[in-house]
Amino acid sequence: MKVAVVLCGSGFKDGSEIRESVGVLWALSHHPVEVQCFAPDAPQEEVVNCLTGQTMSGETRNMLVEAARIARGQVRPLTELRPEDFDAIILPGGFGAAKNLCSFASEGSRATVRPELAAILRGMYAARKPIGAVCIAPAIVALALKGEKLELTVGTRCETSEELEKLGHRHIERRAHECHVDEAHRVVTTPAYMQDRAPLHEIFTGIRALVDEVVRLGRAPSA
Amino acid sequence: MKVAVVLCGSGFKDGSEIRESVGVLWALSHHPVEVQCFAPDAPQEEVVNCLTGQTMSGETRNMLVEAARIARGQVRPLTELRPEDFDAIILPGGFGAAKNLCSFASEGSRATVRPELAAILRGMYAARKPIGAVCIAPAIVALALKGEKLELTVGTRCETSEELEKLGHRHIERRAHECHVDEAHRVVTTPAYMQDRAPLHEIFTGIRALVDEVVRLGRAPSA
Repeated sequence: MKVAVVLCGSGFKDGSEIRESVGVLWALSHHPVEVQCFAPDAPQEEVVNCLTGQTMSGETRNMLVEAARIARGQVRPLTELRPEDFDAIILPGGFGAAKNLCSFASEGSRATVRPELAAILRGMYAARKPIGAVCIAPAIVALALKGEKLELTVGTRCETSEELEKLGHRHIERRAHECHVDEAHRVVTTPAYMQDRAPLHEIFTGIRALVDEVVRLGRAPSA
Repeated sequence: MKVAVVLCGSGFKDGSEIRESVGVLWALSHHPVEVQCFAPDAPQEEVVNCLTGQTMSGETRNMLVEAARIARGQVRPLTELRPEDFDAIILPGGFGAAKNLCSFASEGSRATVRPELAAILRGMYAARKPIGAVCIAPAIVALALKGEKLELTVGTRCETSEELEKLGHRHIERRAHECHVDEAHRVVTTPAYMQDRAPLHEIFTGIRALVDEVVRLGRAPSA
């Protein structure tokens, strides 16, 4: 079984949320699966000083190069991710997921997804291969699969969950240590740092549950 | 109980090893302890493209600002870490630990430690407060506490372990999922990515064991 993990930089304010990404890789390492990280070989939307929250104007960083910090160098350009080569895909969160991989952070339910990622998600979905999305990453899935009536969680009811419902999906409330499994559509989500007061071990418990479910679905023959 | 975690950037080739740092924070989150991250407010020794391994010449990054990516903004300058305010200290690894926090990467047993960190480690040690060190970080402890005959592990016997022995310490062989506890000196170490073929969950098991021992020692009255 082969699982693709999609990153987009390294840092909660401008790239992939580091802890969520590591949590996904840690959870996957318990299973006998092959894991490959991918990231767009393109500049981040912006570079943010994660100490002050201020944009570091004039600085540019490449998503693939920065993702290599999390992936310890083992990351490939997103354009090389072919749905036919993988059995499942997992998207960690972080502001980068909402700024680099799609424009949800600024445009909500009217946002667009990076075209290559939208095509990958539609390809996986059409082949009934499971999709896992952590934190804000369910927004990417909601946009790429608009109108598919998915069940998704981003934690408790909030502005974000309302935008997901505008896209024709149903929001399910879950806590950080839980995940939600949409068995019919083979989509698994967990709130993670959408509930940013949760202790890290609870967030990891939710991510581990998501990964276990994605692996189970990836192994089960599709209906 | 209060535990200080010392970072020095964000990335295995030029800063703190991201996965080890997250593992330490994850393990600590299981305990009812207060955690504070620290990092030097100073430029990294270098910036390395973690995809290619090449130095990004002309680019500078600040250790405190980059560490904030791992710490989600909650990190203070290392100069504010006073040994009297904390019950234990933990140092994750990564090349930054051997390049930014000391000069071990280029000078081995003849290296020096950043003066403020050397003073902190000597202060914690003198107060019999436990010190945890992951991966290559035992080299920092070995340098700061030269001649103290500590028991330390960096995994299996290697060039690094020989340098630690030149500093008057004893190397103990351990695997990634294990830690070594020097009860007499209250120093706990685990190999982590010094054994870089170990699956991530084994590395986390070793880090969790280290953190559990550090917390136990920090709670026990010193002899």
